[in-house]
Amino acid sequence: MKKHNFSAGPSILPQEVLLKASHAVIDFNNEGLSLLEISHRSKSFVDVMEKARALVLELLGLEGKGYKALFLQGGASTQFLMVAMNLLEKRAGYLNTGTWSAKAIKEAKLLDDIYEVASSKEANYNYIPKGYDIPEDYDYFHCTSNNTIFGTQMKSFPDSPIPMVCDMSSDIFSRELDFSKFGLIYAGAQKNMGPAGTTLVVVKEDILGKVSRKIPSMMDYKLHIGAGSMYNTPPVFAVYTSMLTLEWIKGLGGIKAIQELNEKKASLMYSEIDLNPLFKGFSTKEDRSMMNATFTLQNDNLKDTFETMLKEAGISGLNGHRSVGGYRASMYNALPIESVKTLVEVMSELESKA
Amino acid sequence: MKKHNFSAGPSILPQEVLLKASHAVIDFNNEGLSLLEISHRSKSFVDVMEKARALVLELLGLEGKGYKALFLQGGASTQFLMVAMNLLEKRAGYLNTGTWSAKAIKEAKLLDDIYEVASSKEANYNYIPKGYDIPEDYDYFHCTSNNTIFGTQMKSFPDSPIPMVCDMSSDIFSRELDFSKFGLIYAGAQKNMGPAGTTLVVVKEDILGKVSRKIPSMMDYKLHIGAGSMYNTPPVFAVYTSMLTLEWIKGLGGIKAIQELNEKKASLMYSEIDLNPLFKGFSTKEDRSMMNATFTLQNDNLKDTFETMLKEAGISGLNGHRSVGGYRASMYNALPIESVKTLVEVMSELESKA
Repeated sequence: MKKHNFSAGPSILPQEVLLKASHAVIDFNNEGLSLLEISHRSKSFVDVMEKARALVLELLGLEGKGYKALFLQGGASTQFLMVAMNLLEKRAGYLNTGTWSAKAIKEAKLLDDIYEVASSKEANYNYIPKGYDIPEDYDYFHCTSNNTIFGTQMKSFPDSPIPMVCDMSSDIFSRELDFSKFGLIYAGAQKNMGPAGTTLVVVKEDILGKVSRKIPSMMDYKLHIGAGSMYNTPPVFAVYTSMLTLEWIKGLGGIKAIQELNEKKASLMYSEIDLNPLFKGFSTKEDRSMMNATFTLQNDNLKDTFETMLKEAGISGLNGHRSVGGYRASMYNALPIESVKTLVEVMSELESKA
Repeated sequence: MKKHNFSAGPSILPQEVLLKASHAVIDFNNEGLSLLEISHRSKSFVDVMEKARALVLELLGLEGKGYKALFLQGGASTQFLMVAMNLLEKRAGYLNTGTWSAKAIKEAKLLDDIYEVASSKEANYNYIPKGYDIPEDYDYFHCTSNNTIFGTQMKSFPDSPIPMVCDMSSDIFSRELDFSKFGLIYAGAQKNMGPAGTTLVVVKEDILGKVSRKIPSMMDYKLHIGAGSMYNTPPVFAVYTSMLTLEWIKGLGGIKAIQELNEKKASLMYSEIDLNPLFKGFSTKEDRSMMNATFTLQNDNLKDTFETMLKEAGISGLNGHRSVGGYRASMYNALPIESVKTLVEVMSELESKA
């Protein structure tokens, strides 16, 4: 039986993507070779890379607007450093909304001055700060769109007078936004896009080339753009599987269609959390993430019963992060609504038993 | 028909590894979930990472000798920078034996002073310099064990008075060496170990922690060691497939057994190059690579005939690198000797036709 996979990441991928990726490991494009053993400079793979890059811009509505898409390595954790290497000359402003924001700040501080425009750290990051100012003489403004650990999400973005950089690792391709408001978007693949091992970077070219430091080759966005995201051997399998997921999103009707499904899933989930007296949501209602619902069980005596029921229902990956405790239901794009219904039924059944 | 795959990298992997990797993309460990959609912190994947790291040290004969194995991202190109970040305080010595050495030198120079102990650039890198001195007051000595593009290989290594760092991307696990002579070994996976997307680093712990610079988190070997090679989400699929290949090597009898096979393949190949008047080897005989045989066709008029014959025989990936021209037969661990025999037969047949 296929499980109901609520894992926070690496996380569920569409079944048809997994089937195609599995086949390509044996025989890619009926070429008599595995995807893993062909040259990344072969036409077959260059086509994959180009298609993946083009699909990103198409799905985000950024075609012809001066943006380039790159598939790099090293995860969002490497982007924390790379963003600062490429954009930080004197000072940047960061919005601190959780563990990942804090890590981004820590890495950037190694290079230069960082100012926290606002932070929700004092409340264990259970809300998104609002009403902060972004100084127009800073180099850029950095934010994290969705906080996987705490289950909060930015519902709107400021009108930034300076390039806005956003870590969208855990909610890229999940909802419609005016992506042209951003100067740079980055996202580890392993939530909504593909397997762990590649990181998407979407950057407006005209924000680059303005810092005085010498940027090491592998850290240099301009170099990667010039090389068509193939400066060195790319993570072939992760890029191919991401391309398949992007095709799947397009086939469903693009981000608009995905967003409708995600709203339904989140609505089901949060209704149960709010109506069921056994459970309590962690984050402030207005900032609740459509991707990761964090909640606790109010009565510890029911823990074993609940977890046995979850197991029996084939539900996996529901453990909360240690910083928050309790449970976390990650409802990424590929999670079927049936999985959410199953979870909600278990929660509801627990109430009737209690 | 499965092709004879002489690709320089990404390159051929054992068929049984591909079958297992393909299956894991659908269902890993009969857990009802894909390898791509489970948490990297799950016991199942942590076991994979630990097994892969242990197998590396076991196969290299480095168990209990103060070394740690890491599976990182970013390719050898990232290691060019990372080595210098972690080890370069004042000055380091580099042996320049080809394109990859030159790139390693370029990145390290961004941080500090680099001295080329010797170079074969003047001869388009067709040999390995010997008899150079390694100053004992330098921080480290860097070399490239095998030069994929030019088809040369270091047959012996100096007794370095300072930590010896070696890029073994294209010949790791292909031959027995006293690996304890090295302070740090790195290798992109995509030749002898696995798919593109992970980079092996084997480092002697006591050479670390001696530089004064603040090292960014993702660049810091000590941090990755402390986190068990799981500081951030690792490239799960590439690590798993590498583990399968390491198991395959162990099953064959380890590096000793692999080396015997590789010697037979290389001997077949170079005998044909030397005996067949239509072909000429590129590199100096004593420095010829056991992994990559580079050669040219002496008579351009035969080019089309030869290439048609190669295609008909199912031989792929034989094109030489643009820096050398001609042909390059990459004979990595997983290439069956039958593939070399097929190639040699085609070369011999061309001679009888000419």
